[in-house]
Amino acid sequence: MLEELRKAVWEANMELPRRNLVTYTWGNVSGIDREKGLIVIKPSGVEYEDLTPEKLVIVDLENHIVEGDLNPSSDTKTHVELYRAFPTLGGIVHTHSPHAVAWAQAGRDIPCYGTTHADYFYGPVPCARSLTAEEVDEDYERNTGKVIIETFTERHLDPKAVPGVICRNHGPFTWGKDAAQAVYHAVVLEEVAKMALDTITIDPATQPAPQHVQDKHYLRKHGPNAYYGQK
Amino acid sequence: MLEELRKAVWEANMELPRRNLVTYTWGNVSGIDREKGLIVIKPSGVEYEDLTPEKLVIVDLENHIVEGDLNPSSDTKTHVELYRAFPTLGGIVHTHSPHAVAWAQAGRDIPCYGTTHADYFYGPVPCARSLTAEEVDEDYERNTGKVIIETFTERHLDPKAVPGVICRNHGPFTWGKDAAQAVYHAVVLEEVAKMALDTITIDPATQPAPQHVQDKHYLRKHGPNAYYGQK
Amino acid sequence: MLEELRKAVWEANMELPRRNLVTYTWGNVSGIDREKGLIVIKPSGVEYEDLTPEKLVIVDLENHIVEGDLNPSSDTKTHVELYRAFPTLGGIVHTHSPHAVAWAQAGRDIPCYGTTHADYFYGPVPCARSLTAEEVDEDYERNTGKVIIETFTERHLDPKAVPGVICRNHGPFTWGKDAAQAVYHAVVLEEVAKMALDTITIDPATQPAPQHVQDKHYLRKHGPNAYYGQK
Amino acid sequence: MLEELRKAVWEANMELPRRNLVTYTWGNVSGIDREKGLIVIKPSGVEYEDLTPEKLVIVDLENHIVEGDLNPSSDTKTHVELYRAFPTLGGIVHTHSPHAVAWAQAGRDIPCYGTTHADYFYGPVPCARSLTAEEVDEDYERNTGKVIIETFTERHLDPKAVPGVICRNHGPFTWGKDAAQAVYHAVVLEEVAKMALDTITIDPATQPAPQHVQDKHYLRKHGPNAYYGQK
Repeated sequence: MLEELRKAVWEANMELPRRNLVTYTWGNVSGIDREKGLIVIKPSGVEYEDLTPEKLVIVDLENHIVEGDLNPSSDTKTHVELYRAFPTLGGIVHTHSPHAVAWAQAGRDIPCYGTTHADYFYGPVPCARSLTAEEVDEDYERNTGKVIIETFTERHLDPKAVPGVICRNHGPFTWGKDAAQAVYHAVVLEEVAKMALDTITIDPATQPAPQHVQDKHYLRKHGPNAYYGQK
Repeated sequence: MLEELRKAVWEANMELPRRNLVTYTWGNVSGIDREKGLIVIKPSGVEYEDLTPEKLVIVDLENHIVEGDLNPSSDTKTHVELYRAFPTLGGIVHTHSPHAVAWAQAGRDIPCYGTTHADYFYGPVPCARSLTAEEVDEDYERNTGKVIIETFTERHLDPKAVPGVICRNHGPFTWGKDAAQAVYHAVVLEEVAKMALDTITIDPATQPAPQHVQDKHYLRKHGPNAYYGQK
Repeated sequence: MLEELRKAVWEANMELPRRNLVTYTWGNVSGIDREKGLIVIKPSGVEYEDLTPEKLVIVDLENHIVEGDLNPSSDTKTHVELYRAFPTLGGIVHTHSPHAVAWAQAGRDIPCYGTTHADYFYGPVPCARSLTAEEVDEDYERNTGKVIIETFTERHLDPKAVPGVICRNHGPFTWGKDAAQAVYHAVVLEEVAKMALDTITIDPATQPAPQHVQDKHYLRKHGPNAYYGQK
Repeated sequence: MLEELRKAVWEANMELPRRNLVTYTWGNVSGIDREKGLIVIKPSGVEYEDLTPEKLVIVDLENHIVEGDLNPSSDTKTHVELYRAFPTLGGIVHTHSPHAVAWAQAGRDIPCYGTTHADYFYGPVPCARSLTAEEVDEDYERNTGKVIIETFTERHLDPKAVPGVICRNHGPFTWGKDAAQAVYHAVVLEEVAKMALDTITIDPATQPAPQHVQDKHYLRKHGPNAYYGQK
């Protein structure tokens, strides 16, 4: 079932340790088949070196396991919530990559200080608030998704233009048109978080890049007038 | 003698350089057989590339060498003291991993700023005080253990819920149900120490994660209601 | 066409990931044949692992493609502008190496704090200003080159003695007598940027190295009285 | 001539890139045969991958080349000066390892904040002053040695107990009983410099480790009552 998606999601998961984004099992990637409404996701707590495409778990958009002998990632409900709210998402990644986590722990948006950031994230990477005690009690993982959605709704953000978020006291989620692009954005986010940390170490009063520079770089790579790369 | 434990402790020792936790010989792992009351520990000053299971030293809980031609780690008395005081410990690790050392040198507890920390350490990682001149003179390594125990006693900490400590002006000790888990906690501690350093670089006034988030993450992975991972 | 230059520019491009200067495709190297007035440059958005000498693109000093099926780097016009203004340049590199980017994002020159810097860059590495909205609209990449040239003109800098620049909110460009030396200078710049960041972390009020030390180290390696290395 | 020393010094040189202490050719190791009064040293500007024992240069204590077709390291006179002043030195290393350079650029001694430092350096790693314009003009490399010696003389330091120095605006020199131990101390110094930087990032007011802890750790590894390692 879903052989191709299973393979693609497995490859995206295996990219996480190669890109130094995970320690032990601290991360997971999923991908969705929008027609069938089915999600392929990493099983919980399985070491990457032991992961095979067959061990991935298939769940539906109601969090029911459709195929698989193992428990899906403990963050599955967060993924499901995001897929339901953001129809353009084809893949989602969660990691504890250290510099993105540092911004999340400090509870601060990552400002867009330059073109490395602007090429992929339009505006700051938002920091979603911590969950209340009630939200944690009721359904922690599902409400983590809900708070991310609340952040994008309240700030009028387009998840296509801002393909990621950092959750306060927790860490980053990123996404993309498929699992591979979601991992690409996880790499970008970690790199941008590191650069931003070093930037404010040099000058804590650094201002974001001028808006016209942010516009230029984002639109050079995205939308009808993009001209970066090959056709 | 103790072939299986010897092998497990050797493997745990060899994991230290693979995880970039040691420079040269600056670290050691031990494991205990609780029934026999015997400890297997790294010999002192032996390079990891030259280490074999046979070179490990067996000592008893009175610090007597029971088997082995080499001197045991110079930190052996610290290990012994901890095994005697904390009956749940099956393995102990000491390293000079750089970010954990930095917090130890600054003499500060590592606050629990987020879920990466909360998943493994319940509350801050405590910083034990420096030894007095008298304690150093009398028995440095044994008293290092005693000051760790004092820290846990005075603060009413459970060594199972807080599987590690940083010793002021020195470095970290971690532990676990066995040598492998003790190394796992040494990796976590170094990662958490790095993230915490970057967090306060972004905002020196960062507050710890809300208590209900700390509770949730710790209990998601530990105790009767844990649901992370496979059964 | 230009087989040898093609090979040399390809090798210089492949050195970027080996030296950890690029993530994904975030960098490009070009080299020029001054007699023919032709530039060999990396194609846009092509992964380094897929890059072959044949895929490089040849353009002239009017930005016309002379040979090649792929689009040249989106930064081609910046390279062309620099080759036109600075006749001593044989190769140019652009990267997003993280510490150089951090200084560029903070909008600060990198001061010459020591001999590592002074051995290759005579005086601070200048930070060129951001482009205005008009400059971005008119011709972003070409005007990036023009603003670099403006920086060197206004400050009376010799591009041979200062073989690189950081562009505000963007990142570094470096150059040399050929593509290989341009990459060498990109490595030096990243290393120097990292050391300078750590230096001001230790003491934010650090002053540049004394002028006579800067003179000595630069002239030990450059000019008629150089005596570093072999003849 | 001096086959064994040549081999040992070559191996010590090759250890520098393996330990990530050098970029390109930015470092050199020498060793001395005290009976013959001859020094084996790296040739200037030769890449480590091209280095063979035969390419090393032999010089005497008057800076005359005794054997070798290549120019010796441009820092040779500094090495010679140190060998002449400090008779216990058997090997010397110079690198531009980044964290040691950062302290040198900030012009600050590296305080002894903990046992990692105290195990090898008794007291702070001293920062030698910059050379005056006259000293640079007269004989830069020789006077670099003289200023190091001045530092040790004025502060009453024993080069055996403090096996290294950082030269202001420049970088570290370390030494030992032979070339291999000099490299070992170069590794220790870089590690200690990194830890000290992170320590003052956490708390800029951090005080050095108590003297009795410094004494204990240094003497645990050195002198007649040392008990670390094997006999």
